[in-house]
Amino acid sequence: MTTHEKYMRLALENAKSAKGQTEPNPLVGSVIVNNGRIVGIGAHLKPGEPHAEIHALRMAGEHAQGATIYVTLEPCSHHGRTGPCAEAIVKAGIRRVVIAALDPNPLVSGRGVQILKDAGIEVITGVCEQESARMNEVFNQYIVSKRPFITIKSAVTLDGKIATRTSESKWITSEVAREDVHRLRNEHVGILVGVQTVIHDNPQLTTRLPEGRNPIRIILDSTLRIPLDARVIKDGEAPTWIFTGRAYDEDKRNQLEQLGVKVYPTQDENSDRVNLPQMLDILGAAEVSSVFVEGGAEVNASFVQQGLADKLVLYIAPKLVGGRGAPGFLGGEGVSAMSDAVALQDLSVTQVGVDWKIEGYFGREK
Amino acid sequence: MTTHEKYMRLALENAKSAKGQTEPNPLVGSVIVNNGRIVGIGAHLKPGEPHAEIHALRMAGEHAQGATIYVTLEPCSHHGRTGPCAEAIVKAGIRRVVIAALDPNPLVSGRGVQILKDAGIEVITGVCEQESARMNEVFNQYIVSKRPFITIKSAVTLDGKIATRTSESKWITSEVAREDVHRLRNEHVGILVGVQTVIHDNPQLTTRLPEGRNPIRIILDSTLRIPLDARVIKDGEAPTWIFTGRAYDEDKRNQLEQLGVKVYPTQDENSDRVNLPQMLDILGAAEVSSVFVEGGAEVNASFVQQGLADKLVLYIAPKLVGGRGAPGFLGGEGVSAMSDAVALQDLSVTQVGVDWKIEGYFGREK
Repeated sequence: MTTHEKYMRLALENAKSAKGQTEPNPLVGSVIVNNGRIVGIGAHLKPGEPHAEIHALRMAGEHAQGATIYVTLEPCSHHGRTGPCAEAIVKAGIRRVVIAALDPNPLVSGRGVQILKDAGIEVITGVCEQESARMNEVFNQYIVSKRPFITIKSAVTLDGKIATRTSESKWITSEVAREDVHRLRNEHVGILVGVQTVIHDNPQLTTRLPEGRNPIRIILDSTLRIPLDARVIKDGEAPTWIFTGRAYDEDKRNQLEQLGVKVYPTQDENSDRVNLPQMLDILGAAEVSSVFVEGGAEVNASFVQQGLADKLVLYIAPKLVGGRGAPGFLGGEGVSAMSDAVALQDLSVTQVGVDWKIEGYFGREK
Repeated sequence: MTTHEKYMRLALENAKSAKGQTEPNPLVGSVIVNNGRIVGIGAHLKPGEPHAEIHALRMAGEHAQGATIYVTLEPCSHHGRTGPCAEAIVKAGIRRVVIAALDPNPLVSGRGVQILKDAGIEVITGVCEQESARMNEVFNQYIVSKRPFITIKSAVTLDGKIATRTSESKWITSEVAREDVHRLRNEHVGILVGVQTVIHDNPQLTTRLPEGRNPIRIILDSTLRIPLDARVIKDGEAPTWIFTGRAYDEDKRNQLEQLGVKVYPTQDENSDRVNLPQMLDILGAAEVSSVFVEGGAEVNASFVQQGLADKLVLYIAPKLVGGRGAPGFLGGEGVSAMSDAVALQDLSVTQVGVDWKIEGYFGREK
């Protein structure tokens, strides 16, 4: 690890410590080093409050003069509550700026660096860039596409099944893994399933954690088949939004809306199914920046086939159920040639209780 | 790690160094320590040559007097080429014996320990016991059951498929993982597939490694559908043994035998399929102590459903093919209730190139 990486890692750790409290802003951390001594540490903690660099500069005081500042995201160039950070850095007499990732917003990306360079400050970029980008994966996606970051989550047996041949699926993974799922629900703005899951399992789709926050429950239901007594309709635990195709029943829509459910029709030219890109635009406009997809095999396949998935979180339990007819987590048509398989990137495997958790990224082109 | 574990690990490492050169004997390693100084190291290197303890005692010479000997397997009590090791240990004046695992053969297990105790030597057992047992998993199984140790190997996409919906399976995993498979073939006495795989893929089932040893090719072919021009019949690279059910064609059997193929009929009371327990008895009697099953979904399921599998080696590639109809690695009927799933034990995950290799054990009752 280089010295630059060492300090940037500390900045990243401080940034991550504020996870869940900075939305809609990204996580940012900063460290100031003068003559090998850390003189300032900062993180963005809350929207409306100072950016990470400002906190670090205040802590450093006069020691910022001639120092190096590490910051996980390009210093901003816009006039917010605490002024452009790039200008504050210049004013403080900083000699060198080390940046992990440039601003993901193409409209302003590079502007902060330009201000610094124009002032004669040395600028180094790309130190721990990927770690910074992953830390703000939701923000980075949303700021650019104005569509939510889509995470597909599933739990399978070691032979790749989400249920037995009789559709029994309780429980594949251990309690520890299921608790981990609730932590992920807590971090997402929306949670999405198909109506088939509502009909079959009647789930609550809430976060069962102390102080857990419930995501918005998003149901794909092209023709409004959802039962009016479904838990997601009746329990009032969280908002429920239903997306339909073009052929929905207007009476049922009225009934649902009277029960406080939002119904969003979409139009697909070729089918009665829900138009997913339209849905994502609607969700993005409603500031739903992240959706946790806990769909069945067909819902999952819709997102994957249309190239709309960003991340996969797959729990694998050390057991086998077998069965030609038992479903896997990815249905749909599937590809024909092995060379057309959808590749996942940056995979990681961690043990969660007795189960394994695999995380990987879709190489989505935006 | 305790001191005992430290020395036992060294003994295990030395034992493992002889992998592939001790059959039909197990891997055994030994370390002698006197006053905190290693005075002897040994491993069983070749059948007919001295056991590990004898090598270590010879190296220690007079320093064995009053020393502690670590040995990964219970010292033997029988008169072989180098006499009973337990008696040699007594004669050498060893004060304490630390043993990882007792002899797996119930007929002699504990006898070596008894000789040592009768001579007033302190005996400690069970240090790194599981590691020793796993190291000799094939030997331990074979010596007790006289049936081969069965390893089921498969390679799947992250969505659990062994092929696309059009049955294309080349290639799921990377070259590094496929080379790893050839190393495993090299370590097994037999390799097994169903005739469907022969008909569909016409594989060679050989070990493509420099100085690789080819396993015996074992084909499950209940009615002798195998094409006479299949590679495993014609290429002469390794023996090919075919197991049939009761309803095979006698003429085809004669044709195959004239081509040098061994045909073993089995009898199942209830079906025309190959009787797997009978097959395993025949293989065991022929000193086939390990079989690497590279079957398709149905062959794999036969072994799992009948409780005949010992180990699973599963390669998972970071890609998705999707498809309701694309096959997983485990077919058959499958269980009905999730609570009836077959649990795997002692799972480990290692990265092999871009792929993951999961190893686990079936809790087979013998």
